[in-house]
Amino acid sequence: MINWNNLDTLKAYDELKKSTQVDVKELMAGENGAKRVKEYSVPMAGGLSYNYAAKAVDDSILSTLSKLADEAQLLEKFEALYNGEIINISEKRKVLHHLVRGQLGEDVVADGIDKRKFYKEQQERIADFARKVHSGEITNAAGEKFTTVVQIGIGGSDLGPRANYIALENWAKKNNTFKMEAKFISNVDPDDAAAVLASTDVAHSIFILVSKSGTTLETLTNESFVKDALKKAGLDPSKHMIAVTSETSPLAKSSDYLAAFFMDDFIGGRFSGTSSVGGAVLSLAFGPEVFARFLDGAGEADKLAANKDIFKNPALLDALIGVYERNILGYECTAVVPYSQALSRYAAHLQQLDMESNGKSVNRFGEPVNYKTGPVIFGEPGTNGQHSFYQLLHQGTDIIPLQFVGFKKSQIGTDVDIQGSSSQQKLCANVAAQIVAFACGKDDPDNNKKFEGGRPSSIIIGEQLTPEALGSLLSHFENKIMFQGFLWNINSFDQEGVQLGKILAKKVLAHDADGALKVYSELLNI
Amino acid sequence: MINWNNLDTLKAYDELKKSTQVDVKELMAGENGAKRVKEYSVPMAGGLSYNYAAKAVDDSILSTLSKLADEAQLLEKFEALYNGEIINISEKRKVLHHLVRGQLGEDVVADGIDKRKFYKEQQERIADFARKVHSGEITNAAGEKFTTVVQIGIGGSDLGPRANYIALENWAKKNNTFKMEAKFISNVDPDDAAAVLASTDVAHSIFILVSKSGTTLETLTNESFVKDALKKAGLDPSKHMIAVTSETSPLAKSSDYLAAFFMDDFIGGRFSGTSSVGGAVLSLAFGPEVFARFLDGAGEADKLAANKDIFKNPALLDALIGVYERNILGYECTAVVPYSQALSRYAAHLQQLDMESNGKSVNRFGEPVNYKTGPVIFGEPGTNGQHSFYQLLHQGTDIIPLQFVGFKKSQIGTDVDIQGSSSQQKLCANVAAQIVAFACGKDDPDNNKKFEGGRPSSIIIGEQLTPEALGSLLSHFENKIMFQGFLWNINSFDQEGVQLGKILAKKVLAHDADGALKVYSELLNI
Repeated sequence: MINWNNLDTLKAYDELKKSTQVDVKELMAGENGAKRVKEYSVPMAGGLSYNYAAKAVDDSILSTLSKLADEAQLLEKFEALYNGEIINISEKRKVLHHLVRGQLGEDVVADGIDKRKFYKEQQERIADFARKVHSGEITNAAGEKFTTVVQIGIGGSDLGPRANYIALENWAKKNNTFKMEAKFISNVDPDDAAAVLASTDVAHSIFILVSKSGTTLETLTNESFVKDALKKAGLDPSKHMIAVTSETSPLAKSSDYLAAFFMDDFIGGRFSGTSSVGGAVLSLAFGPEVFARFLDGAGEADKLAANKDIFKNPALLDALIGVYERNILGYECTAVVPYSQALSRYAAHLQQLDMESNGKSVNRFGEPVNYKTGPVIFGEPGTNGQHSFYQLLHQGTDIIPLQFVGFKKSQIGTDVDIQGSSSQQKLCANVAAQIVAFACGKDDPDNNKKFEGGRPSSIIIGEQLTPEALGSLLSHFENKIMFQGFLWNINSFDQEGVQLGKILAKKVLAHDADGALKVYSELLNI
Repeated sequence: MINWNNLDTLKAYDELKKSTQVDVKELMAGENGAKRVKEYSVPMAGGLSYNYAAKAVDDSILSTLSKLADEAQLLEKFEALYNGEIINISEKRKVLHHLVRGQLGEDVVADGIDKRKFYKEQQERIADFARKVHSGEITNAAGEKFTTVVQIGIGGSDLGPRANYIALENWAKKNNTFKMEAKFISNVDPDDAAAVLASTDVAHSIFILVSKSGTTLETLTNESFVKDALKKAGLDPSKHMIAVTSETSPLAKSSDYLAAFFMDDFIGGRFSGTSSVGGAVLSLAFGPEVFARFLDGAGEADKLAANKDIFKNPALLDALIGVYERNILGYECTAVVPYSQALSRYAAHLQQLDMESNGKSVNRFGEPVNYKTGPVIFGEPGTNGQHSFYQLLHQGTDIIPLQFVGFKKSQIGTDVDIQGSSSQQKLCANVAAQIVAFACGKDDPDNNKKFEGGRPSSIIIGEQLTPEALGSLLSHFENKIMFQGFLWNINSFDQEGVQLGKILAKKVLAHDADGALKVYSELLNI
């Protein structure tokens, strides 16, 4: 029997509040620090590991966090989720994104359909379509091969797929699995679509329209934009467009599309990177085999997330430490800094995933909670961040924990030796240095040159950013955020906070605004 | 006589703490809200205006903020700065970025050189060089025109110039001033340089090496990367590279470069967008006339920043309201959301500008301060952000003020009408709607659908994102951050917080690390 209780009603949370806090600076000094780095590490899927040596926890706090995980029934809740219970309680929906990458528990049936089968079928249909495009069986009207794929979508239909495309683009080129260039149109700003189209050979492009409901304002508007451009080029839009949508949407059976691939209400936008939403564009860009490897990495990581032992479950451990930082230590933000240019847009994906899931103030039953929930997430790739916002993180007046990511090997392999080390070594040396600099600080008689230290961080270390590693990363953060939502007793799977803006924007466009809204509209010439 | 006092020693600050706080939700309701939107607006340079109607201030608080500006001698400090006093006290340097775009005060002489003349001369040398490249007077060894310019730099040599290039790229194409495509290499990750080079026609490219000292690790490493690529292509690197550096750097008189353009120690990296650092790449990409218009916009904005009346000085007003939010209301972050795809990387520039300048814990004299300083800055363009992190901003447990930017007209002008409105109108309707949604909220019997409101924001509204408007934006935020640094009595112009990481990274690369640092190095295979 699962109990959905607020975090502040749990005994272990009380114990956590009373537990002795530790000083990262002390913990990470000398040989004890070395020992921690060796021991405070948990294997992840895809050849990664989660190292939390520089977090402000010790064995005693970890033991209380483990109790908290038990008392909050985090694993039972995860089990209920993947077995198909209605976890998204406000929208009365199952939450099934894990099912696209494997069968963790029982068969899940909805509306008489085995959902695992349904998702597999969509993957196979996409794989088949992609292979036909790559082989030249499906071509444009002139019988020429398609060379480019353009995703039209916003939010989860954009940020995750785009981040993942950028993450694997160079890997695929290096490993000869690169099939088509991908581009993305998201913003309703007409300059977004116009600029992408101006630099795109539309005659050899497939456009993927991604909208679950078939009603997203930005996406439908940009579809018209694209259709106009195709018509102006003398092309038939229906020969250049495919749809990723729900089976019940108006797009599903429209003759306006070469093909339609399906998703459903049980996978939210920000969790849809491994569904058809990410599958179509990544399978076209890199081939279905690469997408399958990405799913494998995510599926392996999901299995780890079902482990009861917090020291064998990196997502769970990360979630617990995050809640400790947020609710006991009071940190409001987390910086995400992958030392990998390929992950240059990954922070933007995590920003949505985390802030849209856990930026809530009411619990699952609609009651206001008395504690902080999801933090602000921001970040840029390292080493770039070092030359930007790190100043504040090192010497500012707030403590901001960091999530680092680093890989031993680059993706392309071209490198240059300067001053006795390669660029890859310099990159890795910098992330190692930063963890220690943040944790240990440095004293100085000149306060301006003093580093307080005590700034916690964790690092995910991998061999190389492969499709499996990327899938593992994706699942890790999805599951971490899910566990945190359980801890806060909130619904991480709805997003009511996006509704009001939509309603007011419609009012403006219908010239139905009054008061301040009307004056803003006038100032903006609407 | 200027007094450099801590914020919490000022009488007006005390008054501010005691002043009655106001509720944005109340203030923005009904006709009073409409009145505020009309009245709480200050003209900016470049056709922009700063509207602060949705900020948590009223006439009484504004009057105290005006006293605070006087008591903190903000205008006197700015005057001292542009007249050449040593404002960057820790590094004993003048702060002269305003001088590249106009003469605000007296002649500034350093080392016997009139600095305004020096900066003008560099602008003219760059303009001359760019014109010769565009006309074909300067070509590659085969006598062919250069088509691409690649900036090699990191931090301020990358973020600002890149954001500004993206901001004007489509405008320049539309207005027939687009001369050369620009690309950027910044990260020491070898995959950054390798990927950019793989997609670049190096035989027709000019590379700009930007490093003040000529010693920045990332930049020198990437220079070698580029030289290797040029040599592999059978080209002479010295015919493809120019340098932007200080006159005393080893790069200044090297025969390795086609030309060298100069900067100096009086303009910090993050403030260098209007110096040769931004000037070379923007003049080559768009022509020197466009760069000159960008400087004009910034110069006009600087003049406004010298106005004693806070209601005629948008940067000053913005700074004061920001300090009120940070120190009285206790907000830790600010989200920057331009409703303009062209400003897609602008938040990354502002993140550096603000967090590196004001992320400090000691005052100008090296004494720890007892109040919060610079906030965390993050953001993505709208409407994209609406489908990402806005959920937390609307319904999360922390209040996060927003800085919106919107333009009446798009840059390219191609648009599409759907459901009775253009994309540009939809874009603008959304930003208007969001301001009101954040400020006024919405009640609902279902708490999950309730919006508390009371979330403050301001918006900068412009006709169109032109070079002048972009210059105005740049100067606005530079000056805002400067005024805030004065209020917090910190040195906004150094960045000692970046040093420790550099030292430790060197240790790692010299295999001289011990303790935790050594183990991390091993885990990362260095």
